[in-house]
Amino acid sequence: MSELSGPMDGIRVVDFSGYIAGPFCTQILGDMGADVIKVEPPKGEQWRVQDPFAKGFSKSFVSLNRNKRSIVLDLKQKADLDTALELIATADIVVHNYRPGVAERLGIGYDAVRAFNPNVIYAVNSAYGPNGPRAQQAGYDLVIQAVSGLIAANPRPDGKAPRRYAGIALIDFTAGQTLAIGVMSALIKRMRTGQGTRVESTLIEAALSLQRQKLVSIEAVDGKTQSKNPGTVLDRVQAWAGQMNDLVERELYYRTYETNDGYVTIGCLNVPQRRHFMDLLAIDDPWFENPDALPASPDEDQERRALTLAAESKFTQKSTAEWVSLFEGRDVPCAPVQMADDLMFDGQVTAGGYFIDFELPEFGQVRTMGNGLSFNGRPNGHLPPPSLGQHTAEILSELAAASDQTKRA
Amino acid sequence: MSELSGPMDGIRVVDFSGYIAGPFCTQILGDMGADVIKVEPPKGEQWRVQDPFAKGFSKSFVSLNRNKRSIVLDLKQKADLDTALELIATADIVVHNYRPGVAERLGIGYDAVRAFNPNVIYAVNSAYGPNGPRAQQAGYDLVIQAVSGLIAANPRPDGKAPRRYAGIALIDFTAGQTLAIGVMSALIKRMRTGQGTRVESTLIEAALSLQRQKLVSIEAVDGKTQSKNPGTVLDRVQAWAGQMNDLVERELYYRTYETNDGYVTIGCLNVPQRRHFMDLLAIDDPWFENPDALPASPDEDQERRALTLAAESKFTQKSTAEWVSLFEGRDVPCAPVQMADDLMFDGQVTAGGYFIDFELPEFGQVRTMGNGLSFNGRPNGHLPPPSLGQHTAEILSELAAASDQTKRA
Repeated sequence: MSELSGPMDGIRVVDFSGYIAGPFCTQILGDMGADVIKVEPPKGEQWRVQDPFAKGFSKSFVSLNRNKRSIVLDLKQKADLDTALELIATADIVVHNYRPGVAERLGIGYDAVRAFNPNVIYAVNSAYGPNGPRAQQAGYDLVIQAVSGLIAANPRPDGKAPRRYAGIALIDFTAGQTLAIGVMSALIKRMRTGQGTRVESTLIEAALSLQRQKLVSIEAVDGKTQSKNPGTVLDRVQAWAGQMNDLVERELYYRTYETNDGYVTIGCLNVPQRRHFMDLLAIDDPWFENPDALPASPDEDQERRALTLAAESKFTQKSTAEWVSLFEGRDVPCAPVQMADDLMFDGQVTAGGYFIDFELPEFGQVRTMGNGLSFNGRPNGHLPPPSLGQHTAEILSELAAASDQTKRA
Repeated sequence: MSELSGPMDGIRVVDFSGYIAGPFCTQILGDMGADVIKVEPPKGEQWRVQDPFAKGFSKSFVSLNRNKRSIVLDLKQKADLDTALELIATADIVVHNYRPGVAERLGIGYDAVRAFNPNVIYAVNSAYGPNGPRAQQAGYDLVIQAVSGLIAANPRPDGKAPRRYAGIALIDFTAGQTLAIGVMSALIKRMRTGQGTRVESTLIEAALSLQRQKLVSIEAVDGKTQSKNPGTVLDRVQAWAGQMNDLVERELYYRTYETNDGYVTIGCLNVPQRRHFMDLLAIDDPWFENPDALPASPDEDQERRALTLAAESKFTQKSTAEWVSLFEGRDVPCAPVQMADDLMFDGQVTAGGYFIDFELPEFGQVRTMGNGLSFNGRPNGHLPPPSLGQHTAEILSELAAASDQTKRA
């Protein structure tokens, strides 16, 4: 085999997933050259119809479904289920994100699939995995952010019920990448041993993974010697909100400041950077060598809060661009706070080539974010997201041709 | 080759990276069975010394560096650089996250490395990639959150300068996973074609990727026809904060509520779930079929805000556990807001087996979060994070033995 246009050329993925985690995983595989067949119910995947900009296409859908072909199958109809199983028989990888037990009831559980495709890679994303008290529950991103500690770690300054970050489905994206890693590991193993496997990622673990620096226990780990934390969650979250507010009111060096026309974010993580900061702001912070230490006295606390107020006031006297230029001149990590609306045509985004453009037939050109990777340059040539059932006839005729060939052989 | 204990058994990774993104990527590879050799400067990787709980081990370090061996090399010394190059010659994969140009100056740039290991996979994580006005800048997670639009999308209710989410280095983790996907793709390609490649992931693209549902342009994409958004970033972020506040004050169905002892998060995304919500709360919301629509009149706005206040007040009359039990009884997605401190010994986390425990010599047992994947069950047997230079002698003697063998052959 000579040069491949994509590392996964010729690998077939049959994808029953919807929403974010599963489709993001299979879009990554499609970007790498895999032949991803998206199996959709007659009504189409959920996001085709939710807030569409053209019939059957929403921004969410086009951002998660390029490099796939679409076939419509109603798995509750015997004939369509048979077609799905024929398709699965041709697959290297099968992906779904049904709730526990649903794939089995539909007739496409791991055991059923493995019976006629013994070395298949069977990839599942679920909320909690097969074990534990919450195993049977559906997982929505926001709910998993709550149960995993992420929301509690982000209290509101006013102590009110906390929200999730920037409206993004953070956990779904992390889980989608995790599943892609699992599928690729399984494929590497299969290329080396011939053996398939079942691989599962979970939303809860994706959320815990992001907090892994905090989620380390250096005490006895059998759970029995561990005493319960005292106080209600309400008391503890509100105490934490208060501590965070105190921290923010003393924070000088690693934070965002309001300017006269926007915001600038400064990241001073070491002493030389903090010296530049003091110099540019013309402030003198006696505690700059160890700014994360707690104040040694109420007086020190007051002085440090006053320093922060002084810095905040100075930042409002110049524009974001002026501050960025001053800090960049000292090689101190900093950036203007930018808005997503402006980013599609931002100089860095355009020069970096971070996006993937395609022509959506009957609509026009669409720009979406790429997969975040470059291999000796950026990849070219992408299938646009399919319309519902766009490839049904094509895929059925491929199956028929393959079946004829088997009969002749 | 028969069954492997890990899919990447026998694959060697030489890892020059530090902090989060690079070490997270190589820990994933180590978890999959790869032989990861962590090359550390004489002072050790940065996080060994920052906030340690034992000499040379911090929580951040142990959560990102299991399944690796450590060798100390001072790349500025000729003899040590030679050893690094010998080591690189034995590598399948080389990883670093130096700023642009640094690897080249050190003598381990892609061209230098490829000269004596032509089919190596050379993996780099950088802030912005090689092109564009910001290419030469260092990228700290917080700074990338600012420049990528994430921080502006998360305004504070009080309109003050926004913070990042839950104190987590969200972008670094996303970029680390992206790089692992890139390395695995490159390995799949090499197994099929024999050819190595250079693969690069960037922090900025990781941040944009998480916002991909929003970052879709359906207008002309050449950038020339695009008009600038009017107003300063300050005005626009504050307007957005106001809109978000309005939205939150009308939001009933997909949010977190304060209870009498904590918080509960409810995720009603469809009509049947919202009917259960109204029933359990004993409220009547005439707008439940389309709760995201803007109010049609100031009166409607007031009525909807009043409904939200009524729901908030009702939630404070029962405990979190009571509400969870009521909503679970209707199969409505919901969860208690939990704190990270409680999660290490949480029933679901323990039953799910989401963690990896190991014995740290001279310290004791440590529990860390796993990699979020299970393959026909959970993997067993893990190397603890290495002490600084723990394997220097072992790796040098392996190199010497290999060199003797080459001479004899």
